[in-house]
Amino acid sequence: MKTSARNVFSGKVSALTAGAINTEVEITTDGGDRLVAIVTQASVRELGLALGKEAFALVKAPWVILMADDGEVRFSARNQLKGTVQKISRGAINTDVVLALAGGTQVHAVVTNEAVTELGLKEGSPATALIKASHVVLGVPA
Amino acid sequence: MKTSARNVFSGKVSALTAGAINTEVEITTDGGDRLVAIVTQASVRELGLALGKEAFALVKAPWVILMADDGEVRFSARNQLKGTVQKISRGAINTDVVLALAGGTQVHAVVTNEAVTELGLKEGSPATALIKASHVVLGVPA
Amino acid sequence: MKTSARNVFSGKVSALTAGAINTEVEITTDGGDRLVAIVTQASVRELGLALGKEAFALVKAPWVILMADDGEVRFSARNQLKGTVQKISRGAINTDVVLALAGGTQVHAVVTNEAVTELGLKEGSPATALIKASHVVLGVPA
Repeated sequence: MKTSARNVFSGKVSALTAGAINTEVEITTDGGDRLVAIVTQASVRELGLALGKEAFALVKAPWVILMADDGEVRFSARNQLKGTVQKISRGAINTDVVLALAGGTQVHAVVTNEAVTELGLKEGSPATALIKASHVVLGVPA
Repeated sequence: MKTSARNVFSGKVSALTAGAINTEVEITTDGGDRLVAIVTQASVRELGLALGKEAFALVKAPWVILMADDGEVRFSARNQLKGTVQKISRGAINTDVVLALAGGTQVHAVVTNEAVTELGLKEGSPATALIKASHVVLGVPA
Repeated sequence: MKTSARNVFSGKVSALTAGAINTEVEITTDGGDRLVAIVTQASVRELGLALGKEAFALVKAPWVILMADDGEVRFSARNQLKGTVQKISRGAINTDVVLALAGGTQVHAVVTNEAVTELGLKEGSPATALIKASHVVLGVPA
């Protein structure tokens, strides 16, 4: 399976919280990184999602918000992943920032060049990636 | 009507599935391409969405995930559109990939250059576009 | 608080409409610009969102759809913000367009160069920004 989504959290379903319409699904990677997705009940059934089942979560790099400091605010985004900037690739308008999480997962964020300057991001900087659970696409081996 | 959204599915409402809060709306183009959107019940009422009504769906190019092969996995994304790569425009960080669907609709995806290389995408390649139904904006003629 | 999200609506909660699962939260800036977000009931509780409470809304620039004329169509997107193009920064594939709203808020949209040409956008042009309420991330001071 190859997709253009730069962020893939491969692991196992570690939590399932069913609501009336949607279900919150947590994926934990082998390294211990976690990502929460919100999908419809229909998707849970069709994909056969259950505790312990192998699954992966896809997140495109433009959907990731980076934050340089996290002490002063709280957010509605379900996923707030702390990491360290590993690589910065600058284009004319956008920059691709790679964050390494504690468990070894890499998170790509495409942000504007202006944002990189404002946040003072450089290799080795701590940063937090915000990802809305409703922006995550889940997949399972067929 | 002109918008910056590179993907416009113009057609008619071909299915409406109402849930408790949201409604799933399927648009079918004249050429037979289909796209499913999830919108609130309030939007269904305000836009007067009904079977057979003329409508269009907007999707920005950065929201589209491309997949090179689709046999080995299943996804929660409601829209999985098979097509053929028609055009590839490469920038410093991002590449704009145009996919032609069977019914003639063009789907633009903005993905990283790295993704294009990894997927081995070139003109004529088969590819699938994944689009979350909750990312689609619906419109109707006023 | 510094994030890579180019769009920040800082203000106060001016409306809260609770549904079965989600709540619609409206933020009004000091200048009078408004943005509606849809978040879970859990987020409303955890962030302590209430009428009059200080809060801010984050929207990444690639999530914004620009529209050059708005008379002929209606959309499901909850936020349709009228403004004037203030600045256009062109890259190889993407252009960063800054819209100034009536209340002084700036809205950044990253769109393709092709879109800018098609819409005929230039400094001083009127334009409308479409933002889905479910794409907005809310934050509050900790």
